[in-house]
Amino acid sequence: MFSKQTYINRRNQLRLQFKSGVLLFIGNDESGMNYEDNTYHFRQDSTFLYYFGLNKPGLYAIMDIENGNDYIFGDDFTIDSIVWMGSQPTIHEMASTVGVEKTGTISQFTEKINSFHKGAVQYLPPYRPEHQIKLMRFLGISPAESHAKASIPFITAVGEQRNIKSEEEIDELDYAVSVTTEMHLAAMRFAQHGMNEAQVAAKVHEVALSSGGNIAFPIIATINGQTLHNHYHGNTIKEGQLFLLDAGYETPKGYAGDMSSTFPVGKTFTEKQKEIYRITLAAHNGAIDMLKPGVHFRDVHMQVARTIFDGMKALGFTKGNTDDAVENGAHALFFPCGTGHLMGLDVHDMENLGEQYVGYCGIPKSKQFGLKSLRLGRELKPGFVLTIEPGIYFIPELIDLWQQNGTNKDYINFDRVNEYRNFGGIRNEEDLLITETGSRILGKPLAKSIEDVEAERAKAF
Amino acid sequence: MFSKQTYINRRNQLRLQFKSGVLLFIGNDESGMNYEDNTYHFRQDSTFLYYFGLNKPGLYAIMDIENGNDYIFGDDFTIDSIVWMGSQPTIHEMASTVGVEKTGTISQFTEKINSFHKGAVQYLPPYRPEHQIKLMRFLGISPAESHAKASIPFITAVGEQRNIKSEEEIDELDYAVSVTTEMHLAAMRFAQHGMNEAQVAAKVHEVALSSGGNIAFPIIATINGQTLHNHYHGNTIKEGQLFLLDAGYETPKGYAGDMSSTFPVGKTFTEKQKEIYRITLAAHNGAIDMLKPGVHFRDVHMQVARTIFDGMKALGFTKGNTDDAVENGAHALFFPCGTGHLMGLDVHDMENLGEQYVGYCGIPKSKQFGLKSLRLGRELKPGFVLTIEPGIYFIPELIDLWQQNGTNKDYINFDRVNEYRNFGGIRNEEDLLITETGSRILGKPLAKSIEDVEAERAKAF
Repeated sequence: MFSKQTYINRRNQLRLQFKSGVLLFIGNDESGMNYEDNTYHFRQDSTFLYYFGLNKPGLYAIMDIENGNDYIFGDDFTIDSIVWMGSQPTIHEMASTVGVEKTGTISQFTEKINSFHKGAVQYLPPYRPEHQIKLMRFLGISPAESHAKASIPFITAVGEQRNIKSEEEIDELDYAVSVTTEMHLAAMRFAQHGMNEAQVAAKVHEVALSSGGNIAFPIIATINGQTLHNHYHGNTIKEGQLFLLDAGYETPKGYAGDMSSTFPVGKTFTEKQKEIYRITLAAHNGAIDMLKPGVHFRDVHMQVARTIFDGMKALGFTKGNTDDAVENGAHALFFPCGTGHLMGLDVHDMENLGEQYVGYCGIPKSKQFGLKSLRLGRELKPGFVLTIEPGIYFIPELIDLWQQNGTNKDYINFDRVNEYRNFGGIRNEEDLLITETGSRILGKPLAKSIEDVEAERAKAF
Repeated sequence: MFSKQTYINRRNQLRLQFKSGVLLFIGNDESGMNYEDNTYHFRQDSTFLYYFGLNKPGLYAIMDIENGNDYIFGDDFTIDSIVWMGSQPTIHEMASTVGVEKTGTISQFTEKINSFHKGAVQYLPPYRPEHQIKLMRFLGISPAESHAKASIPFITAVGEQRNIKSEEEIDELDYAVSVTTEMHLAAMRFAQHGMNEAQVAAKVHEVALSSGGNIAFPIIATINGQTLHNHYHGNTIKEGQLFLLDAGYETPKGYAGDMSSTFPVGKTFTEKQKEIYRITLAAHNGAIDMLKPGVHFRDVHMQVARTIFDGMKALGFTKGNTDDAVENGAHALFFPCGTGHLMGLDVHDMENLGEQYVGYCGIPKSKQFGLKSLRLGRELKPGFVLTIEPGIYFIPELIDLWQQNGTNKDYINFDRVNEYRNFGGIRNEEDLLITETGSRILGKPLAKSIEDVEAERAKAF
């Protein structure tokens, strides 16, 4: 937890954006797996953490703009709870540590929320079914309308504030990324021909847990790197294959790291792998070179798309005029996703609030295949934290679909592409802070060049 | 997954319990942590797994009793889903592997469910908020009434069927427990003075994940074993302390193991620790000796309570007539929980269906402190799988409360108890199958005697 003053300052800054009304913050509950009491690890709502700091289930907070009062509501432990879960401070004691003196029980929360004019209560979009049930119970809003009725001024104010990371947040993110680097190094120094993916994923997971935090998102640890969010870990890994790891640490304060690395299952990359790897690396470094305040991230993404298309052209996979090809989305056969996304308390920061507000700031988002998956399009400002993660993927189903439909056939040499249909995928990913003049890579650097990756892999043998 | 015939047979057995109506099975969805798409690992509903075998989110199944038809509904992957999550068989292909030929989309599910008379549709108690929203959406049942309207005949039929484990389920449970043993041995051979609890928990977690499954429940790995469900892992562990581990493996098929062990952070137990350990062990072995068909598990629990009370009396912690003391719940100062619970696809098997039906079979459950936490009270039958897990705990808050209120003061020597208030807790836990004539410990045996535990600990040094 940060200091009491941090939370008071954050709330005061938010309060200044409103003239009237009531802001409702719904904390997360425990989530049952196969029955209510067999729970996943608890994850607090990030906005609740940001303004109210308490990392406990079953809480609600209110900011009453007109009288300037902040409230936290929750039920204290009974002796039965203490026997099962140990002693803990009272709600009032915990609330004091974040500068909130007005507290109450859930029953008092119900009275309080009922005392407001319903239209005055503003809330953020619900992303868990439990939020929808609570909005129905306390505000009479049905699940079907709960998204549409979320407050855009509230979303925008939170988005603009959380997007600019403070010094203490940057320290925490540096730490999150440094542990993330250790997770990747552990994999590079451990993976061996004949293991299965689960063994490598388990080692990476262990590093996160033993550091006292958790994984920031489900680990991708796969020889099928072409599947972007592949959480299957059942394959045996073999010499000659590429291993793609996308994993990040979440600190006990809730801040995320998010890195990807791609390394050979054997000691060294093959020549074919090196050729593709060099293209992603050129796109990656080119993107980092562009980062500075005032640049639109959509332009960074388009530059990455051109670099990938050009690189693939030099290897005979693509053809034709690069600008036209990228305009038509032809690069998306190999790079169907975005160059990066915002990061902070959430690995995709504030994805729950809506990309159109947080990542696009009202700029219309493309509906083109590939570009529609870019989560960040807006102008960069100092204090933004984001990922850079270009990749090249050979996705057999997508190749077949495009070839069958003749999609972008003027720009793609399908025969050449088909020779690589079992190649897999390559991605590197780093986390960066936008500074006043450019950018800075967060945390401890991770092996990224072919030479550095092979040097780490040598330690596994 | 088991064979197609297994699922067909299970459904046919269930069907025989009903003359009419429609059984609705709601599969689980992905659960978002801090936004919808950042998910915890997926856990299918156990009853859905048991009858329909498919381990995928977003599915519904229906058994129409009158016409004998079974249905599975879900939406097939689009090309966008394939790019992000890889290829997968169609719903129809997957359903065929479990003997269901009638399939449809979610939109067709909506039509189907609307085609039934509402009162004909029977469902099981919802334990996730998503289930409540679905019951509201599809059956018009509000969250507030969704528990009360669950079908008791459906609960009872599922409970009686799933309680008797088949040969193939017993094989799977043997396997789950054997990996669970490896998780405990890894901790015993790893833990060292000066580590923190999280490092030990992470090692245990790694064993589960690297075996291709997951943890069956949140790991308890603590020097504060007196807190029964303690998931905090932030303490540094020190020579002289006891370390209590309660952890279990969940196989990829979804079956659980659940064991507890208690070992010294140093090489050996202290004499004081050995004295208490011997009492829990006597209670433990005495309970196992009683297990056989026809025995009521409540009687096993009461025998454990007497053994613990007597053992503590010999050490001067308790006094008076044992039968009277146990009748009054005096043992619950040290043993405020149950001797064991059913286990299967869920670590507390079918806790979501309600203990009163599954574990008590209609026998009234006690409301006395301690006894009310016994999850299993009924007569045992061949094929039941359960845990045995007596323990002795020194819970400072509970000691203070009882002393202050004079609770059971005729049976407790509070001065003596207070000398041990920082002792912690001891629990051993094993998983057993009720056979035709008695019981059998499942899986690979885990060190349990003082000598065996110390022999494992010696490997850490």
